[in-house]
Amino acid sequence: MPTSTTTTSEVDVLIIGAGPAGLMACNALAKAGINVRIVDKRPQKIGCGHADGFQPRTMEVLQSYGLCERLLREANQMHLAAFYNPNPVTGGIELTDRTPDIPEPSARYPFEALLHQGALEDIFIDSMKESGVEVCRPIMPVSIQIVETEKDLTDLDAHPVRVVLKRLDSLEGQTDTEVVRAKYVIGADGAHSWVRRSFNIEMEGEQTDYVWGVVDMIPDTDLPDIRNKCAIHSNHGSCMLIPREGDKVRLYIQVGSRDALDPTSGRLDKDQMNPEKLLNIARKAFAPYYLNTPKDIEWWTMYRIGQRVAARFAVDNRVFIAGDACHTHSPKAGQGMNASMNDTHNLAWKLVHVIRGWADPSIMTTYELERRKYAQDLIAFDKQFARMFSGKIKTAGNEDGDVSVEEFTRSLELFSGISSGIGIIYQQSAIVDTRHQSVAKNLIIGKRLPPQLLVRAADHRPFELQDLVPSDTRFKVLVFTGDIYEPIQKDRLAKLAVKMGANDAFLKRYSPGGDIFAAFDILAITMKKEEKMVVRHTDLPDLFRTHWSKVFIDTKPLRGMLGGDAYSNFGIEATGAVVIVRPDGYVGMVAPFERIGHINAYFAQFSK
Amino acid sequence: MPTSTTTTSEVDVLIIGAGPAGLMACNALAKAGINVRIVDKRPQKIGCGHADGFQPRTMEVLQSYGLCERLLREANQMHLAAFYNPNPVTGGIELTDRTPDIPEPSARYPFEALLHQGALEDIFIDSMKESGVEVCRPIMPVSIQIVETEKDLTDLDAHPVRVVLKRLDSLEGQTDTEVVRAKYVIGADGAHSWVRRSFNIEMEGEQTDYVWGVVDMIPDTDLPDIRNKCAIHSNHGSCMLIPREGDKVRLYIQVGSRDALDPTSGRLDKDQMNPEKLLNIARKAFAPYYLNTPKDIEWWTMYRIGQRVAARFAVDNRVFIAGDACHTHSPKAGQGMNASMNDTHNLAWKLVHVIRGWADPSIMTTYELERRKYAQDLIAFDKQFARMFSGKIKTAGNEDGDVSVEEFTRSLELFSGISSGIGIIYQQSAIVDTRHQSVAKNLIIGKRLPPQLLVRAADHRPFELQDLVPSDTRFKVLVFTGDIYEPIQKDRLAKLAVKMGANDAFLKRYSPGGDIFAAFDILAITMKKEEKMVVRHTDLPDLFRTHWSKVFIDTKPLRGMLGGDAYSNFGIEATGAVVIVRPDGYVGMVAPFERIGHINAYFAQFSK
Repeated sequence: MPTSTTTTSEVDVLIIGAGPAGLMACNALAKAGINVRIVDKRPQKIGCGHADGFQPRTMEVLQSYGLCERLLREANQMHLAAFYNPNPVTGGIELTDRTPDIPEPSARYPFEALLHQGALEDIFIDSMKESGVEVCRPIMPVSIQIVETEKDLTDLDAHPVRVVLKRLDSLEGQTDTEVVRAKYVIGADGAHSWVRRSFNIEMEGEQTDYVWGVVDMIPDTDLPDIRNKCAIHSNHGSCMLIPREGDKVRLYIQVGSRDALDPTSGRLDKDQMNPEKLLNIARKAFAPYYLNTPKDIEWWTMYRIGQRVAARFAVDNRVFIAGDACHTHSPKAGQGMNASMNDTHNLAWKLVHVIRGWADPSIMTTYELERRKYAQDLIAFDKQFARMFSGKIKTAGNEDGDVSVEEFTRSLELFSGISSGIGIIYQQSAIVDTRHQSVAKNLIIGKRLPPQLLVRAADHRPFELQDLVPSDTRFKVLVFTGDIYEPIQKDRLAKLAVKMGANDAFLKRYSPGGDIFAAFDILAITMKKEEKMVVRHTDLPDLFRTHWSKVFIDTKPLRGMLGGDAYSNFGIEATGAVVIVRPDGYVGMVAPFERIGHINAYFAQFSK
Repeated sequence: MPTSTTTTSEVDVLIIGAGPAGLMACNALAKAGINVRIVDKRPQKIGCGHADGFQPRTMEVLQSYGLCERLLREANQMHLAAFYNPNPVTGGIELTDRTPDIPEPSARYPFEALLHQGALEDIFIDSMKESGVEVCRPIMPVSIQIVETEKDLTDLDAHPVRVVLKRLDSLEGQTDTEVVRAKYVIGADGAHSWVRRSFNIEMEGEQTDYVWGVVDMIPDTDLPDIRNKCAIHSNHGSCMLIPREGDKVRLYIQVGSRDALDPTSGRLDKDQMNPEKLLNIARKAFAPYYLNTPKDIEWWTMYRIGQRVAARFAVDNRVFIAGDACHTHSPKAGQGMNASMNDTHNLAWKLVHVIRGWADPSIMTTYELERRKYAQDLIAFDKQFARMFSGKIKTAGNEDGDVSVEEFTRSLELFSGISSGIGIIYQQSAIVDTRHQSVAKNLIIGKRLPPQLLVRAADHRPFELQDLVPSDTRFKVLVFTGDIYEPIQKDRLAKLAVKMGANDAFLKRYSPGGDIFAAFDILAITMKKEEKMVVRHTDLPDLFRTHWSKVFIDTKPLRGMLGGDAYSNFGIEATGAVVIVRPDGYVGMVAPFERIGHINAYFAQFSK
């Protein structure tokens, strides 16, 4: 007899979709102690194929959650990009250049990491387990609505989003549904996002006729650069090689649109193609190097490049879409998974602050502001990249190509900031205040805090500055003290401590329950004017050395590491500066010692 | 009714004592798949106190087993040594110098790591679990003998050592004993070693009258160097501070022998002392800095410095003693645990090779040869150090001291090689062949392979050379190829490949079951004469590129790391060299390309 059961539950945040975007959000929220739930319709996480490239900024973000060490243990690293182009005489390809894969000079991890998506999902899933959260699957959402009368954003206790979920593994004839009442919902449910379609959000942009095949395998070839990123432009089509974990390589192979699109519908027709056909095309591009068909093809697919951004990323600032649900681009540029995780990294801390009652809900508008702009920039980049890569190369013997070797290389360098994820600059908003940029000329406000090696004053142990500002939901206050033994500066610093420690200044004003360290961490970075100078952490005002581990010196480590020159790298003078770093690692504000009032005003805009 | 049960079992190696020496041995043997058993009389591993300092070489060794990452995650690091001496005018102490704690320039980890012994034991215990081996406890040995008729070392199947073990947690009135028949026994049972006493092995050396107290605590003080190693020589006695994990500090406090030794017996009398008394002594030395008594004393003890080495380290090359069982010295020099682990690191691979039938049992004589010499050097160092440290300091106002500040600092630097563990050089023997030292002038034969950053040819990923020669029981063959694009060198290299690949050369001659890679790993290190040179791993002879991951370039990484100059660091010319690294990471032999015969002879001395 068919039965049906319906249960009802409440949750602070419901996440639909347990891919990279959903898992990044869920891990961040779970670690912050938020009541969060994540559901996915797949019965299991994926085992192979799919996204696999980690950009430098993504590694920095994973590191900020303590997850990069494992990624680096399991992943392959891609340091060099090699370019193969037709030899004008023989017509076969030859190596024309090798360049660093990541030209971005400030990358902490100056390479790409490669690891299949399932392994990444495991890293998140294991981390979430420590907070007692697991992915519920296979579960499909069947309806979603925001209850008009309850959507008032100022009501912290309201659960205005109603989602009906259905179990997909119920016994035959049985229907298990559940009504979830959520404060917030994140739709991280992929390119065909059900959440997006439920709210009729348009995807703006276009499809192209560029079609590519992808094959994952352990290759048998004599191409010397098979373990580097390899861009092959031949007279017989283009290939791109991505060396992966183990001895595997992902091969991207350009396919003529006639061979891949259904002539009547214009749609991609995967049935026309198979791995052997794809390898035959690649083989022609590889000549004079051989490429034998391997015993096993681990995974393969076909895709047509589309470049689209969702018209909105949020509905009533109660439902948010993230990841592939709001932007699609060509996998070859390696951006999809990275942009997705960075979407929810941006979103999570804002939700945490609002749910805890620390931040005004208006802060949520900055999610769309910051991430949609980035997605649009990314699409612009991707368009140019796809055109470059899918076009024919100009050579001495073949002047009628679409793009020259130099043009291609230059465009790659030009976009290194965006492709590495490091070039993102969030625009002026309630949480990005650029007015005192001149106090730290090279520490771009709205951009991520760059890596910098510092030495801890109390024990001379070297530390990476980025590791001192983890994604722990707190704002970090970096006090660049200048030379604490210079009498005038010492006096200014003492006055700064008094002002910043005042009851009406931001530290105490926005400290939940009077505990400064719930919402803030304070680090001091002192100057060492000469090699021989002895810096004692005990010589700082108490507020700037709340523990011996909180004081650092801008100097080189004793041995074996690069470092030092933080003040000059950041463009900070000996008069010092106060730098506010957002919980996601982006510089939110900079101020001179005498403008603490402006920092108070910054926090007043969004803090409660 | 009292009952008694006796069982009998066989094992390849029985280890008595599960401290650092025993666990290092057990982990190494278990990882190598040897049938090993480890017993300890303590019901549980220790929780706090005891040894805690990890020297640079010990960290390198732990890293070679994949265990250093966790150690560094849990341990404190000590980078600076601070020296406090009496101010001639006030008489109170003042900072006179700060120096690197580890002056040794080639240390891969240029600091000491501090972590209590129980945490180290956990690292080994967890690693052993992966090989299915656990510590059996509480179990005490009651008798041991070597059966004369079976001790013939050439009989690989003999189990000549009979040990009777007794369970200490048997029910009342019940006796559970077990007779273990072992091929080899390691006595790692501490300073009062039962194994050593069972074979009447003398401890040679002497006791001193220097007595020290040790207190572990979280200190309340305004001494600015409380997180550095701190040597305090005051007019009111000496102290040494070791900052530990968490906020803890270990305080070594010199005690007058009258206050600590029983006047009639001359023995250490712990009852005369307590932590408060010790802190009172320290307080006087600290002045003008304050030192309040903390709420909790985590651990405390007293010791009298003794410097002794066992007369023998082995009995019939069937029973070996290791660690504190064969050498004792002052804890303050931080050597005990380090020397202990390095003893069994030296011993383990030799046992593995003999038990597998790869090496002639005569190789076992090199254990005593190599480690007893080191223990004697260590004692000589320790004597001088103890005298220095326990003596009175000479100052401008106090000329009748025993030792000057300069003398003290100089002696520390002089012994940095031995105190860091890096200076050890094993002497000429069957496994150390120094005849071709001139081919790699700075790669001292008998010394550990120093760290060196290399770049992998196939993918330009940076690697630490030490990580390419892990403790996996294999000999490593490093082929420094020179410039593979220089025609004469290319030709010499091709000839080397032919000779080394011949059936009668060492690689095939000593490959168990014809598998070269069971007993050897082969790495090639190529030269890059100019920045622009393109090195292809595919251009090397097949024998030197058995996998794309086996070829390296002596060049700087693209960014963010120091490195390069391996050839000049090691003193190797463009004509190249073949370097044999022992399974424990020590350079065993070096030869020019044309002297492969000498390498064959090297292996012929101990291989089967």
